[in-house]
Amino acid sequence: MPVNYSTPAASQLHPVAGVRLGVAEAGIRKKDRRDLTLIALDEGARAAGVFTKNRFCAAPVTLCRQHLAAGSDIRALVINTGIANAGTGAPGMAAAEATCHGVAETLGIAPRQVLPFSTGVILELLPAERVLAGLAACQADLKADGWHAAAHAIMTTDTVAKAASRRVQIGGQRVTITGISKGAGMIRPNMATMLGFVATDAGIAPALLNSLVKEAADHSFNAITVDGDTSTNDSFILIATGKSGVEVSDAGDARWPALKAAVIEVARELAQAIVRDGEGATKFITIAVEGGRTIEECRQVAYAIGHSPLVKTAFFASDPNLGRIQAAVGYAGIEDLDVAGSRIWLASNGEEALVSEHGGRAAGYTEETGSRIMQAAEITVRVHLGRGEAQATVWTCDLSYDYVKINADYRS
Amino acid sequence: MPVNYSTPAASQLHPVAGVRLGVAEAGIRKKDRRDLTLIALDEGARAAGVFTKNRFCAAPVTLCRQHLAAGSDIRALVINTGIANAGTGAPGMAAAEATCHGVAETLGIAPRQVLPFSTGVILELLPAERVLAGLAACQADLKADGWHAAAHAIMTTDTVAKAASRRVQIGGQRVTITGISKGAGMIRPNMATMLGFVATDAGIAPALLNSLVKEAADHSFNAITVDGDTSTNDSFILIATGKSGVEVSDAGDARWPALKAAVIEVARELAQAIVRDGEGATKFITIAVEGGRTIEECRQVAYAIGHSPLVKTAFFASDPNLGRIQAAVGYAGIEDLDVAGSRIWLASNGEEALVSEHGGRAAGYTEETGSRIMQAAEITVRVHLGRGEAQATVWTCDLSYDYVKINADYRS
Repeated sequence: MPVNYSTPAASQLHPVAGVRLGVAEAGIRKKDRRDLTLIALDEGARAAGVFTKNRFCAAPVTLCRQHLAAGSDIRALVINTGIANAGTGAPGMAAAEATCHGVAETLGIAPRQVLPFSTGVILELLPAERVLAGLAACQADLKADGWHAAAHAIMTTDTVAKAASRRVQIGGQRVTITGISKGAGMIRPNMATMLGFVATDAGIAPALLNSLVKEAADHSFNAITVDGDTSTNDSFILIATGKSGVEVSDAGDARWPALKAAVIEVARELAQAIVRDGEGATKFITIAVEGGRTIEECRQVAYAIGHSPLVKTAFFASDPNLGRIQAAVGYAGIEDLDVAGSRIWLASNGEEALVSEHGGRAAGYTEETGSRIMQAAEITVRVHLGRGEAQATVWTCDLSYDYVKINADYRS
Repeated sequence: MPVNYSTPAASQLHPVAGVRLGVAEAGIRKKDRRDLTLIALDEGARAAGVFTKNRFCAAPVTLCRQHLAAGSDIRALVINTGIANAGTGAPGMAAAEATCHGVAETLGIAPRQVLPFSTGVILELLPAERVLAGLAACQADLKADGWHAAAHAIMTTDTVAKAASRRVQIGGQRVTITGISKGAGMIRPNMATMLGFVATDAGIAPALLNSLVKEAADHSFNAITVDGDTSTNDSFILIATGKSGVEVSDAGDARWPALKAAVIEVARELAQAIVRDGEGATKFITIAVEGGRTIEECRQVAYAIGHSPLVKTAFFASDPNLGRIQAAVGYAGIEDLDVAGSRIWLASNGEEALVSEHGGRAAGYTEETGSRIMQAAEITVRVHLGRGEAQATVWTCDLSYDYVKINADYRS
């Protein structure tokens, strides 16, 4: 069960003019499940993306990078579940290319206008012929209000479908932003996560779109971790169709901050939904590190805490074993950190307690307070490093029996 | 249950001339358990140590560093379990100093000749008065064949006591090396682990002893991981009493390679025992990475595999989900790694299978082979990076339900 998250109703996911989605059962790895999604974009849409830094990146990720480098005039995205087509060498690349050719033929566009995505088991070759056989059904299913079905069709070990949608007024005109994501394990995105798709009907100039997709990723998918494992297939795509009539072409435009904020908000909601649905998660943890010299060192500390199996099992047990958090701060890699100048707080439900200062337990802190705060399903760890003005926030979940169960059973 | 490890019998742990050990029940945190160990060294012994790089290092670690910096003529080690005296600020330092003064008074030596060690819960202050009250009983118990009892008295979440002993002929003379260690969780030593003590009756000149303790740590305690958490209290101490009559004072001495190899062998056996007894461990995994440009990048890849919860749960399940290993190789941080040039093998019980090459699944590899190899309790993952001559080996264990259980229950 995800932590305080459920899929929005289909009616809450506003269509984005210029985007249509269709799904199908292609039998990629298992029968009787919707495992193929086609997203068709009207002419004039622009897309930008960020992708995993994993050197063993999947064949579709390599193709996406090539196609986006060739131009932002993308017309289709195709997503299969079941098989990640990662660690598949040259045959994997051929399968991804065959998929793009199939989509191009189906929609009457060029193969380089297609972005392919795969998610599922690594080291297995994608059966391209099954993808191709399923495309006609996807095409027949294409519709503007297909977001809800698509959110379900891209799930793997996810227990809930993830989607978010906003309508905002930008310079007096209505702009819609809607997105979907998937992911529950192998989550420590290092550019973006597997998989996030956000579309807006605002028009955004290519250079601006490229910078926004990176900024949005940094404030959403690049700030979450479930198990510290960076996927081979992480991809986050931002699409701007321009159909709303709002067109922003430079960062000085007065409408830009509001549009940017709305896109980041949708991306963050989708990213947090992945953590809330993290494999075996029973708690949603916000780790806010401030007072660092650089954002990078704040992130380093936040991830050290967020990746520590000892910290994560303590959260699962609602045990304020806070020495484990101190230890993680201490080994995070800031070699000249003066721990006597650092402070650690724990908070939930509007109550915040100072736990550690001067290198030791804070004077007023009691186990009773710690235990009470740790009972909550949503907990914030705040760390002040006492050496600068930078800050960073990371979201993660606890480590439970079910994490082991899910990952020991997966594939079987 | 540890993986293929049981404590050697007391008779297999050879006394080291010049070293006596005594234990006592001091009631540090719980009653009715031996939780205090005193190791007394005859005059003329030399000690060297390596310690955690955790910035939140424990008060006793700080004192150990100061005392060793003041001279290698250490005469006593005192070790308590129950409370780690880490994250305890100035009061923690005062408690560690009081402990050293108490030992110095008991044995008629100087406080700077005492090395203190604590292990247990972090963020709790050491009750120095209980340590002091227990010292007389420790002193009364001091004996040359006290290694077996001491190995038991330094345990915390360990399920078995860890000890190793060797007798070797060095230049026609008999030299003894005996050591003990403890640790099962918060194991990703970053200098050495919590806690390892090795003594030899060889004499080793201070400069040589200092270099040997670092080299031995790098080939033993600095090459293991259970959960990736670097402890606040990691300490590895090497003692040379000189009582055997063998005295080595420079690295050119013909006897040095054999002595060095024997010390490293004992340290490695102790370090591996910690992994075999890793919290919840059901498998012992050797990760050998070769063909790297530097040892550092080989270690980076080995630790990425060894820390991956996905890889570790797959080992627990005996599931050859080898894409997870590829993914870890890919995200280990070698930015210019050409995965097409890398190869991955899996081995156990004398059978080795090539799993991955040319960036994909190896032609001859079958799931049946992978499954058969994964059933074993001891498994080797071998990775060739195909870009150089460097190599490094790391030992780790799997991630099971019991890891979560142990760490969610600890303290309760």
